[in-house]
Amino acid sequence: MRTNKHLYAVILAGGTGTRFWPVSRKSRPKQFLDIAGKGSLLQGTLERIRPKVNGSRVFIVTSASYRKTIERQVSRFKIPKANIMLEPQGKNTAPAICWAAAKIHRIDPEAVMVVLPSDHLIAHPGKFSRVLGEAISLARKDYLVTLGIVPTRPETGYGYLQTKTKNAEGRPVVHVEKFKEKPSLSKARQFIKRKNYFWNSGMFVWKSSVILGEFRKYLPGVYRLVGTKVGTAHVQKVWRRLPNISVDYGVLEKARNVVAVPAHGIGWSDLGSWESLREVLSPDQQGNIFKGDVISVDSKNTFVWGGQKVIAAVGLDNVIIVDAPDALLVCRADRSQSVKDVVSILQKNNRPET
Amino acid sequence: MRTNKHLYAVILAGGTGTRFWPVSRKSRPKQFLDIAGKGSLLQGTLERIRPKVNGSRVFIVTSASYRKTIERQVSRFKIPKANIMLEPQGKNTAPAICWAAAKIHRIDPEAVMVVLPSDHLIAHPGKFSRVLGEAISLARKDYLVTLGIVPTRPETGYGYLQTKTKNAEGRPVVHVEKFKEKPSLSKARQFIKRKNYFWNSGMFVWKSSVILGEFRKYLPGVYRLVGTKVGTAHVQKVWRRLPNISVDYGVLEKARNVVAVPAHGIGWSDLGSWESLREVLSPDQQGNIFKGDVISVDSKNTFVWGGQKVIAAVGLDNVIIVDAPDALLVCRADRSQSVKDVVSILQKNNRPET
Repeated sequence: MRTNKHLYAVILAGGTGTRFWPVSRKSRPKQFLDIAGKGSLLQGTLERIRPKVNGSRVFIVTSASYRKTIERQVSRFKIPKANIMLEPQGKNTAPAICWAAAKIHRIDPEAVMVVLPSDHLIAHPGKFSRVLGEAISLARKDYLVTLGIVPTRPETGYGYLQTKTKNAEGRPVVHVEKFKEKPSLSKARQFIKRKNYFWNSGMFVWKSSVILGEFRKYLPGVYRLVGTKVGTAHVQKVWRRLPNISVDYGVLEKARNVVAVPAHGIGWSDLGSWESLREVLSPDQQGNIFKGDVISVDSKNTFVWGGQKVIAAVGLDNVIIVDAPDALLVCRADRSQSVKDVVSILQKNNRPET
Repeated sequence: MRTNKHLYAVILAGGTGTRFWPVSRKSRPKQFLDIAGKGSLLQGTLERIRPKVNGSRVFIVTSASYRKTIERQVSRFKIPKANIMLEPQGKNTAPAICWAAAKIHRIDPEAVMVVLPSDHLIAHPGKFSRVLGEAISLARKDYLVTLGIVPTRPETGYGYLQTKTKNAEGRPVVHVEKFKEKPSLSKARQFIKRKNYFWNSGMFVWKSSVILGEFRKYLPGVYRLVGTKVGTAHVQKVWRRLPNISVDYGVLEKARNVVAVPAHGIGWSDLGSWESLREVLSPDQQGNIFKGDVISVDSKNTFVWGGQKVIAAVGLDNVIIVDAPDALLVCRADRSQSVKDVVSILQKNNRPET
């Protein structure tokens, strides 16, 4: 076993995204879906860190309402039940990470923790593992390390890291200067040209001691509530008083020792939309990606996520079709961000298909 | 009752079209479907002629395999069971019409018969009734009368009637010179400009005596087999020897006394494709036509024929979506003729969805 005994993993699995509607639902968000055909995204995340982190040192922070799904999906990874940390409500990443850091820190004050979203896709786990190794080395030197994805297109659906300098050893490790929210297309194009911008992957590595210090400094309210006392009863009681804030904006934007390890070619996607999934899958010669029982007549650049019935695609170009048992989505490919509008309409009408 | 006692109707209901796939199937062709929301197309056809023709004088020629469906659908029209004429196999319109003409002629040698396809849509039955009245008047003068639809666009999916002169009274009744098969787009554009071309509706009126005379002259083989003897046992025996030929090409192209009554504004469609249905329905301000449970986000000129589930259409333009319980069609609107290719593929693979 090459796992490192001071190395821990925190998997953030509380997301409620419905941007993969109609396949993802409130009760079945995308981390639990088998998007890539190799188990759920959560299971894929656990597989990726398995070579480095023993199951007993993996923690999963999730919503109380997903407990059963989580237990079922992670059973083969030998994660102690006590490591499944249930948030009474979603409060974004800062409270979850602070709580997990405190919990790990009590077990091992020398802990280095890898924080990973549970709902991303990484097509090339070997490359990811090497990048993660670099990040862990830097975390041991007390850096707050983020994985920065080298952008391949002016994506407006991601946040960006603006970086400053390479590190002393000339390695492609760069100090993070600013976190940029999802930019306009023209901004995104500028970012791509300038070469010092990376996609903010939401993957982090740091010592529990270091991140707790930063929480104490920049989010003292969070630190006070979940940065020292970590018991379930206590957390249950105080959770609703926590702010809803991300670790990026609450801590990392203010901290000084943030570095990015550029990740190139790991095949990362945050799977924020059907379109983003399409981009990481391999199309056929016509640019089509078909899952399920599909008959194409002169269709190209078309993405079909089929269900139980035969789907005929005739003369289409740049269309996304997703067929679920109780709902169907047909969407122009470059409009897949608007799926959230469909979900809003459904929610507003109290419909069951959300 | 204003029905005319020498007036008979022959409804051709043996069609097996699958161009409304996935809603139409081999076992459920479009004449039996409720396309316009007011009963099946067959029932609509019977409703339209009800004011003119008593149920006892309505004959339906259909495939033996549709007998039960027909009986169920026509029960309210008081059509005698003996008037439902079952073809052992489909042989196109000439044999069916010759057989029906002979059968009616034995009942009433003075009969005028209205021949109507059972699977067309006529949005304005009042106007249709007036046109039909004109056609009947002309048929009484021994003309072979066709209803010619005044074209509204250079449609390539229809056959055309090329006509010569207005009739003596200056009424818009025109001698048919040629039957033109589905033209190319450039041909169709010429036809439209020239004003003497009409869409061939497949609706005819003539005396049984007159049409039987034409059969004897131009299709003597058909006349010999089903133009004199009409009993079921006889027809069963000889049917397979009949040629597969339409009355248009077998008789009307050769006959001399064919006239067209121009029909304008009757809202006719042969419903040869989803696109042709779309053209006769009323779109909303965005050009959309939605049946069923549809959520549109910025879609326009989009046609959704929904089934049991919610359908979200996002950012679409000129798309046809048809959702059936076991099959889904998503089609560029101007490619709906290619639905037949989908059905061919399904048939070739012996699939149940045809």
